[in-house]
Formats: sequence, C-alpha cells, structure tokens
Amino acid sequence: MISSQILQSISNILGPEGLRTRPEDLEPYSKDATRLIFMPDAVAFPRNTRDVSKILAIANAEGFPVIPRGAGSGKSGGALPVEGGLVLSLEKLNRILEIDEENLIAKVEPGVITADLQEAVEKHGLFYPPDPASIKISTIGGNVAECAGGLRAVKYGVTRDYVLGLTVVLPGGEILKTGVETAKGVVGYDLTRLIVGSEGTLAVITAITLRLIPMPAAKGTMIAYFDEMTSAVRIVSALTRRKVIPTILEFMDRLSLECVRDEMARPFPSTAKAMLLIEVDGDPRQVENDVEKVGQVCREAGALRFEEAFHKEEVERLWDARRNVSEALFKLKPHKISEDIVVPRNRLADFIGFLEALSLSSGLPLPAFGHAGDGNIHVNLMHDQADPNETGKLEGIIKKVFEKVLELGGTISGEHGIGLTKSPYLSMEIPKPAFDLMIRLKNAFDPKGILNPGKIFVEPE
Amino acid sequence: MISSQILQSISNILGPEGLRTRPEDLEPYSKDATRLIFMPDAVAFPRNTRDVSKILAIANAEGFPVIPRGAGSGKSGGALPVEGGLVLSLEKLNRILEIDEENLIAKVEPGVITADLQEAVEKHGLFYPPDPASIKISTIGGNVAECAGGLRAVKYGVTRDYVLGLTVVLPGGEILKTGVETAKGVVGYDLTRLIVGSEGTLAVITAITLRLIPMPAAKGTMIAYFDEMTSAVRIVSALTRRKVIPTILEFMDRLSLECVRDEMARPFPSTAKAMLLIEVDGDPRQVENDVEKVGQVCREAGALRFEEAFHKEEVERLWDARRNVSEALFKLKPHKISEDIVVPRNRLADFIGFLEALSLSSGLPLPAFGHAGDGNIHVNLMHDQADPNETGKLEGIIKKVFEKVLELGGTISGEHGIGLTKSPYLSMEIPKPAFDLMIRLKNAFDPKGILNPGKIFVEPE
Repeated sequence: MISSQILQSISNILGPEGLRTRPEDLEPYSKDATRLIFMPDAVAFPRNTRDVSKILAIANAEGFPVIPRGAGSGKSGGALPVEGGLVLSLEKLNRILEIDEENLIAKVEPGVITADLQEAVEKHGLFYPPDPASIKISTIGGNVAECAGGLRAVKYGVTRDYVLGLTVVLPGGEILKTGVETAKGVVGYDLTRLIVGSEGTLAVITAITLRLIPMPAAKGTMIAYFDEMTSAVRIVSALTRRKVIPTILEFMDRLSLECVRDEMARPFPSTAKAMLLIEVDGDPRQVENDVEKVGQVCREAGALRFEEAFHKEEVERLWDARRNVSEALFKLKPHKISEDIVVPRNRLADFIGFLEALSLSSGLPLPAFGHAGDGNIHVNLMHDQADPNETGKLEGIIKKVFEKVLELGGTISGEHGIGLTKSPYLSMEIPKPAFDLMIRLKNAFDPKGILNPGKIFVEPE
Repeated sequence: MISSQILQSISNILGPEGLRTRPEDLEPYSKDATRLIFMPDAVAFPRNTRDVSKILAIANAEGFPVIPRGAGSGKSGGALPVEGGLVLSLEKLNRILEIDEENLIAKVEPGVITADLQEAVEKHGLFYPPDPASIKISTIGGNVAECAGGLRAVKYGVTRDYVLGLTVVLPGGEILKTGVETAKGVVGYDLTRLIVGSEGTLAVITAITLRLIPMPAAKGTMIAYFDEMTSAVRIVSALTRRKVIPTILEFMDRLSLECVRDEMARPFPSTAKAMLLIEVDGDPRQVENDVEKVGQVCREAGALRFEEAFHKEEVERLWDARRNVSEALFKLKPHKISEDIVVPRNRLADFIGFLEALSLSSGLPLPAFGHAGDGNIHVNLMHDQADPNETGKLEGIIKKVFEKVLELGGTISGEHGIGLTKSPYLSMEIPKPAFDLMIRLKNAFDPKGILNPGKIFVEPE
C-alpha cells in the first residue's frame, strides 16, 4: 500500500484532478483485454514529462510499483497492476506534437489513439503503416511498449520499424532522449529499440518520433473463400513464389468466420471453411497487376469464390468484421484464452492441420484467425470457466501449441507480448543465459524493480 | 600481453593454422579504413561458434581484450586493437547457410562478403537491400556490428531493419540465439537490435538471420548536374513533396566530382558544381512514371544536364565512381578525416551552405558527398599531416561541424559508428544519464570489459 502521505505529495504535483484513489475510480484501471482483474492503490494522470519524472523519483525513493498504462487494450496483461501500486495513465499526454512532411516524421505523445494518428498523417498524404486490430482504441504509447504488429506487417513491418527516437523517463526520474529524428543514426547503444517492446518494464515513454512514408497511390482489396483451411494458407507460399507481397493477407477459419457472418457485407458460400482477406497497394498500374496475380493464384488453389474491387464502405465493413472477430468469438463460449503465435510462412498449413487435430482430440473449439502473410496466428482456446472438464484441458493445450510452434521454428508471441499471461511459458523459448542477461538489463534500468513488476520474467500469481 | 601458455591453449583449440603471432602476420590486422595502426598480440581464426565460445571463455577468465573483426573496412576504428590483445578474425565463418525463398530469409555466417550475399539472393529473385559503399569488401558481420547503412537506405532502411535474429557468444562464452526466424516476434527484450550497432562491444556474432524481400522488377537510373550545390540538395525536398521516394539519391559536391572525373562514363559540364545520382525501382510502369517526375523536378530546379536510361555497364561504372569517391579524395591532400553526419533532409541546403563557408574560412578543402535522400553526408577534412598549420585546424573544424549538425536536429554518426575516432565527441550528442545507462548495459553483457575495450565510451589514447 502507498501511504497517504506519499499520495498527498503525488496529488500536490498533479493537482486534485490528477490522482484518483476511490475504488470506483480505480476499477476501470484494474483490467485490460485479458479480462483479469488486479486493483491498483491509485491512478495518476501526469500531463507532461516532468510530471512523470517527479512521480518516478518518488516511487523509486519509496519503492512502490508504477504501472504505465495506455488504453488498457493489451492482450497479455502488460498494464495490470499485479502487485498493486500506482497505475500511471498516460491518457492526458495525448497531443500530436508535429507532422513534418519534409522530413517524413511525426512527433507524438504516447496517449494518442493510433487511428487518430493515422488519420492525421493521411491528411498530409503520408502513411503510418502499423495497424494493430485494436487501432481504434489502443494508443501509440501502448503500441510502442508492446511492439504492436497488425495487419499490414506483411509488407510494412511492425511498430519497431517506425520508431526513430523516444523521450523516456527512467525509474529514478531521469529524463532521456533516445535515438534520432533522422532516417539514420548509430550513436551509442540502441536504447530506442531496447525500450520498444519492453512492456513498460524499463522506462516510461513520454514522447515518440515516428518515421512516416508517402501514402500509396492505390489499393486493391480482395476476398477469397476456400473449402479447406490448408488450401487458403497455401496461397501465402504461392504468392511469395510469384514475388507478390500483399499489404495485408488475413485469414479466418470456419469457426471465426461463422462468428462474424452477420457483419459480412455480402453472404458467403455455405461450404466455406476459410476466408482470406487480401489487400495490395502501390502505383495504380501495379495494383491492377497484383490483383490479377492474386486472383489467378486463388483460382488455381480452388477458391470457392474470389471477389475484388469493393466500394470504400464495403471495404471498411470488411475490416471492421476482421477487427471485431476477436470479440465475436465469445459467441462460441463465454471464456477465451488467446495465443499469439508465429510459424514460418511455409509451415502454416502444417500448423493449421495440427490445430484441427488438437481441437478434435481435446473437444474444445480452437478457432484461429490472423496474419497469414507473416505466419502470425491468433489461436483461441474457447471454454467455459464454470466447466472444470474444459478448464482442466487448457494448460495442456497451450503447452502443445507452443511446443509445436517452437518445433516448426516459430515464436510464442508475434505481437501481443509476454506480459503476465505468457510469462510462465517464457522459458520454453528463451534459454537460461538469455533470460539471465535480460534480468541484468532490467537491473541496469530499474535496480529497485519499481517499473511494472511481475511481468515478462515471473510466474503469474 | 597474452602469455605464451594462454596462446598455446588457444592454438590447441584452433589448430596450428588458427592462431598467428608473428609480427608480419599481425600487421594486416593492426589497421582498418581509418589508416590508424594498433598492433594486436595475436590473431585467432575460429571456424565455428564453439571455437568462439572456447576462446571467449579463456579471455574472460584471463582478462585479456578480444577484438572481433570482419574485413577491417570500418571507418571509425571499431576493429582496431587499441589495447592490444587478441583480434578475433571471423573470416573463416564465411558460409551462406541457407536462402529460404518461401520464408524470405537468409541465414549466414558473419564472414560472408555482403556483395556475395546480395548476388546469391538475387539468383533466387530476392533482394537484400543494405549496400554500404564498402559492399564489395565489407562483411555482413561487420555491417551488423556497425549497423551499416548505404545508398539504398532512403527507401529500404539500414542493416538493422533486415536482421531478424542472431547467434552470438557472450563474453563468458555462453552461446545465445536471439530474435526469431519469422517476420514477427516480441518475446522478451530485443537483444537482437541491442547487439546490432554495438560495434563488437557486447557479444561476438557468429550467425545472422536476415529478412529478404522480392527483387523489384525494374530500375531506372538517372544523373543530374547542377551549377550550385544548394540547388541539387533542394531536389530532395521537392521529391519528398511529390511523394517520390527514390531507391537511391546520392550527391557529390564539386571537389568530390573532380576527383572521380576520369571514372565517369560520360564527360560532365565544366560548370557543374554538384551531381545527383538517382535511382528508382519497382513495377516497370511505376519506374517509368517516377523517372518522368524526377526529370521534371530536376529541370524545374535548373539542372545543367539530366540524363537517364543508361546501359547496365554504364550504370555499374557510375556506381563504382560513387563507391570509389572516398578513396579518390586523396588526390586533394594526403590525409583525410571523414565524418559521417546526418541532418534532417530539409536542412541539407543550410548545412551545405555552412560547410562551404567553413571551408572558405578555414582554408581547408572540405569535400562532401553522400546520401542526400536521408540527409546522411560524408564530410571530409582533407589535410597534410606534415603541415602543422593544417593539422592544428582539424579539431576546431570537427567540433564546429558537429555543433551545427546537432543544432539542425541531426546526429554525429549516420552509419560509420563511434568506434575509436568519434568517441571523444560522444558526449556532444549523448547526455550523461544515457551515457551512464549505456555503461550499465555494457557491464550487464561484459562485466570484465574484455570485448573490444577502448571503443565508443572512452577517449582515444
């Protein structure tokens, strides 16, 4: 528990509106997209880097946990105050500081909603490609802390690839600028990329310099249905062989598809067991060319249906269906564990076959959807927590999934991070010397362990 | 000095061919592209990761310096054994282990020459974009250790952007795999990017997994001459405004141009004071379109001459002229200090103006060339070390250049690293808390300080 005296000094820094301690005010900050609940002692709302610095200096001196928080849309529990302490909500640091067309950069505060940033840069004819499915609610700060990926990563990479520099506050309160505001820069160790994806355990991010690219002139959106999941994922290899790298190559399996049936703009074939959503972009003539190639590949693979050239509204509705699929799966069962694994592109069919067999043998629905283009699959263990027969199987299924993923040369987290929920499995992928090294790095940043304790490297309670 | 007993145990590991100690054998390993000389005690030639591990375990126990070395083409002294010790030449780890067309990755050992790798992947219709000017001699391991940039970084980014995972040996001898072999992965801290660009001070790289992309279908190469350097660099902003991102946008100023005059395929206008070399790539029709836009922009900016559509041989000759300019500058003066600064793209004209004035006021030729597209300029302080009047000015000029660069929002090293030669200036860009943090990170990897001592964080002797 943080003493009332300490709370008073934080309140003195932030003003009466800047600190909340009443249980009803804390409740929204006790949860995230994992649906787990951990109550903080208090929530602070700093307005600028100096506020963050002052609060961290106090926390470091007094030794209480500080948990940085964006929108709380994380899927691995990164923003949960598992050991209590002070949630540091960055929602008031929400300004787009600059969009610089000549240097192709944007400077933003961490609390900016990522979709708002995208919209703002698009007004300048520019493009910020990373687009996690949570884009309309998640913040850019959270995206950076988790190294969010998204749909367009196939072609454009992930959040890490667009972060040039950061302003951060170290646990002792020191304010640091890392990285550069230019396209190149190699001065000293790469603190910027070390902090990207460190899930709020190394430093608190208070400003971000992002690289932008020109907006592609044209886009082509396609949808294809297949009567077998394995046919659908073979498209990925077939397109790679023809050197077509789509902007987006999303898939949904039969169960996922059924859950969003009502949201689809057009009805789909009743025998469809898999859907691919494909987008290409670039020069208009290249887009035309690529759309043709994709159609050819899909038809050769025996697509039940292949459609292209949607209206803008229809395309938006398609993307909404894709973004909502994660929530829509609750139609199957009241509870869900979502695993965010990656396998090499050409092992997707193997993995999907494995998953179908596992669903059959375990008797649990294991709907899968995700980013086929980069091998990043969201595997969902749907279950009912009231049914001990179902909950008893979860642990075993998760382990089997991760074992298979690692056997295929993949990774147990593509874009959701380790946070709380995946920390028990970290050692399956990270060998002891790397684990020990990471702990030493953590200590180099945060010797007292005040920043987001109980994450990545520990067993959840 | 390393004792003869220790040398014997290293020789026992590597065989008689694997360790050299005779002065004439050490001599080639005492220098790099800086033309500075530091003699090592011995040079070891490990053949695999296990050899490296065994040697580092000995070095860590005995406390002697180990200096990892690629081709020795570095421009900041990263491979120089400034404190003596054992140079660890990775030239025998030179196999391309795998080029995987379906997953768009390559696995290579660090001693592979980067141009050989590029050629090998091109045979599969694939593309490894980073291309430092040293590409025909430098190794991929050295490129990763320095985070090499190059000509195509404008559009395609730098080495960091293509490294997915590493096999490294820590100073204690522990062998680690970092990162992933897939497009996404966020498990634990990003050791991979922390080691990229760490200049051999954190770990020895023994294998690298690289991301590849499909080879662009077409290219267009152009050359433009201007009667003013500032007109040339304004093209950069003009192209950005029209959303054209060339693959390459290189410039040479008048002095640089004069030095490669004999190597140019076609004679150039006598009034030319600046040259731009421009390449665009992509879909053939897009290339056509972009070439047209570039021509228009150049003509509007008053280019003396604009030429396009060279034969392959002529293009290759142009690139050779560009690659050789660094050496050709010795025609001006016998000695050179080359600084690798970056300014924001839209401040290029300001910086070039500043440089011309500085050359005039100092009386020293300061030829500049480099990557106009990303603001990365190689500024060369040509001088004669025998002339105290000239050498006495160098320090002051370097400081003024760096001060201007930082004032304009740039960085003091775009792609050459800090190594030995830039370490006295590190604190101009890296503030104390960041410096201290980097030292703590170094200690987390290398508590005994055996890996490449005397680099980045210290004054050269």
